[in-house]
Amino acid sequence: MKNGYHVAVVGATGAVGTKMIEMLETTTLPIASLKLLASKRSAGQVRTFRGAELVIEELVPASFEGVDIALFSAGGSISEAFAPEAVKRGAVVIDNTSHFRMDPTVPLVVPEVNEKALRQHQGIIANPNCSTIQMVVALEPIRQAYGLRRIIVSTYQAVSGAGAKAMTELKEQAQTFLDGTPATELSAAILPSGGDKKHYPIAFNALPQIDLFAEDGYTYEEWKMINETKKIMADTALSVVATCVRIPVLTGHSESVYLETVESGATVADVQSLLAQAPGVTLVDDPSQQSYPQALFAVDQKDTFVGRVRQDVDVENGFHMWVVADNLLKGAAWNSVQIAESLHKLDLVRIN
Amino acid sequence: MKNGYHVAVVGATGAVGTKMIEMLETTTLPIASLKLLASKRSAGQVRTFRGAELVIEELVPASFEGVDIALFSAGGSISEAFAPEAVKRGAVVIDNTSHFRMDPTVPLVVPEVNEKALRQHQGIIANPNCSTIQMVVALEPIRQAYGLRRIIVSTYQAVSGAGAKAMTELKEQAQTFLDGTPATELSAAILPSGGDKKHYPIAFNALPQIDLFAEDGYTYEEWKMINETKKIMADTALSVVATCVRIPVLTGHSESVYLETVESGATVADVQSLLAQAPGVTLVDDPSQQSYPQALFAVDQKDTFVGRVRQDVDVENGFHMWVVADNLLKGAAWNSVQIAESLHKLDLVRIN
Repeated sequence: MKNGYHVAVVGATGAVGTKMIEMLETTTLPIASLKLLASKRSAGQVRTFRGAELVIEELVPASFEGVDIALFSAGGSISEAFAPEAVKRGAVVIDNTSHFRMDPTVPLVVPEVNEKALRQHQGIIANPNCSTIQMVVALEPIRQAYGLRRIIVSTYQAVSGAGAKAMTELKEQAQTFLDGTPATELSAAILPSGGDKKHYPIAFNALPQIDLFAEDGYTYEEWKMINETKKIMADTALSVVATCVRIPVLTGHSESVYLETVESGATVADVQSLLAQAPGVTLVDDPSQQSYPQALFAVDQKDTFVGRVRQDVDVENGFHMWVVADNLLKGAAWNSVQIAESLHKLDLVRIN
Repeated sequence: MKNGYHVAVVGATGAVGTKMIEMLETTTLPIASLKLLASKRSAGQVRTFRGAELVIEELVPASFEGVDIALFSAGGSISEAFAPEAVKRGAVVIDNTSHFRMDPTVPLVVPEVNEKALRQHQGIIANPNCSTIQMVVALEPIRQAYGLRRIIVSTYQAVSGAGAKAMTELKEQAQTFLDGTPATELSAAILPSGGDKKHYPIAFNALPQIDLFAEDGYTYEEWKMINETKKIMADTALSVVATCVRIPVLTGHSESVYLETVESGATVADVQSLLAQAPGVTLVDDPSQQSYPQALFAVDQKDTFVGRVRQDVDVENGFHMWVVADNLLKGAAWNSVQIAESLHKLDLVRIN
């Protein structure tokens, strides 16, 4: 590294790509140059970065010549095709899609939890699913102190997790409803999943489907939370189960998390104290002041917000908490840039 | 009973009262007359019932002279003051507020679950909390077949549970946001709880507070689900815990329910089969067709909709399901009218 890294963002015009550029603006990662890549359709558009105007280029294999760090967020098939091309040319890839996450040769990293796993990287590092990241950030301090036996989570996920088009769909449906169209007659083309057959209105509704259904009746989003949590925490004995639900929120995922610790004796105050000191966590937990995390107020924040910490009524080692984060930042763009910062700190970026 | 009962609705202009009148339109309960009662402010307004125009009268103790069945839904303090007045005059009270629910002399009834408890009534019968009702309707067939050990529920509750003003608040906030006001700057005066100090926007947000907070960090809404479920099921050994959350839906509560049965051996198909045959339940559960209950499509329906039935990944006796109902109907007005129908069927209405 002379005066910094040559960085590329793949999928620069998307909901997450836009936030990646924003996070790179203020990163501590030394950046020598930034290259913005997207589909042919978006090439030629201009974005501003640190006062300079950058023209978006069409993504081709040669785009990665001279690139040190490539942040991918343009869909699994793009990552599948182009991440190896980037690695071949000497770049480290930080991939925000699900494509490589469960590959045993690919570290799946949330810096607050398993930064050290980066040392095993072979060119590609996977950024976990948004709903997984904020949950493990909140759970890790408790796991370190008391161990974790079991997690049951129900999510309240924002539409921006399905991309910019889903955000537009929610806003248009809401306006159409407020203008007098019955909610059941609202047209839908994106949610619950762009890749599935049927679409339902999300405005003034709750959809218990995120991503497609697996054969067993769980959705792939639910399996991501289950499998990724075990991989990140390197604990296959941990019991994790999820119900993933989309709600009419634009940005900010909320989660109702139940956990059981291995060791006994933890109090609510103990758990709150751990969370208050944990990296990447802001404790917002004072019922007497109606103080608890809210999706609206997590937007544009990097931290994961935790509150409503309560001991289970019947199970001594059981606790409930409410976990909220900006799914586009900690759930995607910020976690990716954080991984880049960690790679730099640990001197794990291969330089051309 | 000559040609039917003399029925009164207290709180006839509210969100639930309006639905009570609607449910009485088509009830099998023989009705001789209907009297609509409300505050002085609403007296004089006119409502239509079975083709006749009824003038709303101001609620006073003497309103209950000659009344056989009085349906209350005008707030706990009104029930506290006027339900005994109605009983004194020979009426049976079906109270939709929380005021008498945990009174050991007052049956708390969901007809599909514990209709027989009506036999113990001493003039007042309590209608459970909306979020409790739909959950116990879905759980009862499983409990009867396999027993229940444990329930963990996270709710996705509609704003109409907080009354007509909360519905207006959500719609106004949504329009103000769509017109350009940042979501964090939306004004709020009702939610999360009209009786609490601080108010937060519900549009495009999720609020993990329904009702006030108890000292222990649980909300009273959560305690209602815990205590009422045990009372309705007459099972104090049952472990129940809840996290109650308001989401930007107008009508239709959704619930992510985890349950553990006492007996082993149940399969997903067994549970689905029980639910398909259960009274008051519509099974909507075919992931291959993206078929699952949705709040939007439960509106104006009397049944409780259940889907996404899945076996827990790790716990053999554990199941997850998604339970949706119209909170103003099965959660309030319809369950109240159903109780009246049950009283009639069991000949438990005292006639003046």
